[in-house]
Amino acid sequence: MAAKQLIKLSEIPTEAPKGLKKKDVAEETERLVERFGELHHLLYAEGKHSVLVIFQGMDASGKDGAVRRVFRDCTIAGLDLVSYKKPTEIEMAHDFLWRVHRWAPEKGMLTIFNRSHYEDILIQRVHKWIDMTRVKKRMAAINAFEELLEFDNNTLIFKFYMHISKEEQAVQLQERLDDPNKYWKHNPGDWEERKLWDQYMEAYEYAINESSVPWHICPVDNRWYRDYFILKILVEGLEKLNMSMPVPGK
Amino acid sequence: MAAKQLIKLSEIPTEAPKGLKKKDVAEETERLVERFGELHHLLYAEGKHSVLVIFQGMDASGKDGAVRRVFRDCTIAGLDLVSYKKPTEIEMAHDFLWRVHRWAPEKGMLTIFNRSHYEDILIQRVHKWIDMTRVKKRMAAINAFEELLEFDNNTLIFKFYMHISKEEQAVQLQERLDDPNKYWKHNPGDWEERKLWDQYMEAYEYAINESSVPWHICPVDNRWYRDYFILKILVEGLEKLNMSMPVPGK
Repeated sequence: MAAKQLIKLSEIPTEAPKGLKKKDVAEETERLVERFGELHHLLYAEGKHSVLVIFQGMDASGKDGAVRRVFRDCTIAGLDLVSYKKPTEIEMAHDFLWRVHRWAPEKGMLTIFNRSHYEDILIQRVHKWIDMTRVKKRMAAINAFEELLEFDNNTLIFKFYMHISKEEQAVQLQERLDDPNKYWKHNPGDWEERKLWDQYMEAYEYAINESSVPWHICPVDNRWYRDYFILKILVEGLEKLNMSMPVPGK
Repeated sequence: MAAKQLIKLSEIPTEAPKGLKKKDVAEETERLVERFGELHHLLYAEGKHSVLVIFQGMDASGKDGAVRRVFRDCTIAGLDLVSYKKPTEIEMAHDFLWRVHRWAPEKGMLTIFNRSHYEDILIQRVHKWIDMTRVKKRMAAINAFEELLEFDNNTLIFKFYMHISKEEQAVQLQERLDDPNKYWKHNPGDWEERKLWDQYMEAYEYAINESSVPWHICPVDNRWYRDYFILKILVEGLEKLNMSMPVPGK
C-alpha cells in the first residue's frame, strides 16, 4: 500500500466552504436528488452492482436527516435501511460482523447503514470494553470484510463521517430539549457521551486512517451543505458505472 | 508466518494405520462418542465458547456417515447442522461468505458444516467458473473470516478433509447403484465429477496448504477408522478448554 496522508479531524472544517451561496446549493441539491433517483433506478433494473452507504458520526451530527433527504427519489423496492443500535443478546453471542454481514446488499440493491460495524471499534473502544489488540484485529477484519463485498459482489461502498463541531453539537442537542418536534430524539445519554468527545475523535481518526476503503469527511455544521456534499459523491460514483437498462434479446 | 510443510495428498495414506485392530478401535470409538457427548453438554451449559466442525471431501467420502455417527451423544439443543448445496438465487446475489456467516455458531453451540465455503474455491475452480485471481482473493477472505470467528467469538474450528482413494470412491459409488438402501444417494453427476479427480486434488491441496486454520486429513477408506480419527481430535480439542458447569453465585 502506498503511503497515504493521515487525516487529522481537527484540521478539517466542519462548515461549508466559503463563497458558496445557500440558494445555489439548494437548487443543485434538488437536481442531484433527481439524478440520483434515476441512477438508483438503473442500479435496481440492471441488477449487476450493489451499493452500501455508511453513515457514522457523533450524536446529532445529522445522520437521520441525511437518510431522510438524500434518498427521497429512490425506488423503495431497491432500498434497504439498517439502523444499528445496541446489539441484542443473540448478536452479542456472535462475532461483531455477524449482524452486519447478513444485511450486505444483494445485487441491484442499495443498502444504507445508519451507524455500522464501526461502532464496534468506536463506542467499545472509548468505553474501554475492548483493548487495542482487539481494536486492531477488528479493524483488519473490517478491511477484509469490505474488500470481500467489493471483489465478490460488485459492491460500491461509500462511507461518510458526519463531521460536526463540538459547539454545533451542543446547539443541536439543546434544540432537542427546546423544540417539541425534536424532543422525541432527546436522550440524556448523549450529553454523557459528549464528555468523551476527544476520545471519540481519536477513535474516529484511527478508523478513518486505517480503512482500506476510503472515507468521505462530510462537513455538517451547515445542514444545507450536507446533503449536497453527499449527493455529489454518490452521483459521481454511480455515473462511473455506465449503467444501462437491460434490452430484449441480450 | 513460519514456513510450514506443504502437504501432498497423494503421499498421505487413505487407509487406517497398520497394526490397529478393528475391534479395539470400535471400543475406543464408543468411549470417545460418550466423552464427546459430555464435553458438548459442558460447552452448551457453559456458553463461553462455540465450535465449528467442517467436513469437506469428494463424493462418497463419508461426510454424511461421520455426521451421523460422531455426534450421536450430543445434546440436540446445542447442535446445528448446515448442509451446503448449490447456492440459491439470493445467495448468488451476495458474496460467497454471506450464506455461511449467518450460520456461524453462537456461543455455547456446535455447528457442523457438511461441505462449506470451501466449495467456492473447489468446484468453482475446477469447473473454471472463477479464475485463479478470484480463488486467491477468496482464500484470503476465508482466512480472515475464520480468524474473525476465532478471535471475536471464541470459536474452535475443526476442519476435516475426508481423504478417500480414487479406487475406494468407485466402490462406494457403485454400492449406491447396487444396494437398494443406498440408491437414494445415487447421483449420475458424481461419476462426471470423478473425471475431474486430479483437478480436485490440486484444488484441495491449495485450500489445505493456504489455510491459516489447519486441516486434519482423515483417512476414510476404512470406515471403522474414520469416526475414531475425528472423535480423537474433537475430544482432545475440547478437553483443552477446561470447561466446567456454572455454579451458583458466580
